[in-house]
Amino acid sequence: MNKVDVNEKLTLFGDYWNPKIVGDLNGQHIKLAKFKGEFVWHKHDNEDEMFFVVDGELQIRFRDKTVCLTANEFIVIPKGVEHLPVAKNEVSVMLIEPATTLNTGDAESDLKRDKLERI
Amino acid sequence: MNKVDVNEKLTLFGDYWNPKIVGDLNGQHIKLAKFKGEFVWHKHDNEDEMFFVVDGELQIRFRDKTVCLTANEFIVIPKGVEHLPVAKNEVSVMLIEPATTLNTGDAESDLKRDKLERI
Repeated sequence: MNKVDVNEKLTLFGDYWNPKIVGDLNGQHIKLAKFKGEFVWHKHDNEDEMFFVVDGELQIRFRDKTVCLTANEFIVIPKGVEHLPVAKNEVSVMLIEPATTLNTGDAESDLKRDKLERI
Repeated sequence: MNKVDVNEKLTLFGDYWNPKIVGDLNGQHIKLAKFKGEFVWHKHDNEDEMFFVVDGELQIRFRDKTVCLTANEFIVIPKGVEHLPVAKNEVSVMLIEPATTLNTGDAESDLKRDKLERI
């Protein structure tokens, strides 16, 4: 039962699109990630996904609209909804989603990360 | 699928120890709350509880230690663990826990809130 200092954890890595696990919550993982550039269109059939922006600006594109988030803003992507995360500049994000969640969801992509590091 | 601006939501209420629901995530509620003073010792038998500090300072007392959190720090209280939140001054917190969670857990207290407002 130790606290997690999000800012301190964010100093421990610099790679993009490679979430790190920093906590466990009711069968979910709490993760930190840095994004830059454009990810890949995908959806998660069984998992809602929370993106909370810690620093920077994140766009979440949906098929019919785009939502822009900055620090201290979050969005929950409901299961089954296609989305595309885009970061024009580096953004630091806290993600919360079931431990079963694959970052690329149903998409085939080199960006897939199926063994996440715990920091 | 709209974003939630945590800072803006925090301007909408001022009462202490009365969490407001601001989102839904895999059967859990995402809540915002303001705390000041001392809560009540309690535990949640079936639910892990995440406290993420948005602004201010929060103490979580356990039977054998105290953890102090400031902005951008979080802690997960595992199910079954007795704890006592204490805020010397006003603190703003984001909570994530199953929708079934009662704020006072197993404790009898006037601080119990069993009908949470959604903002």
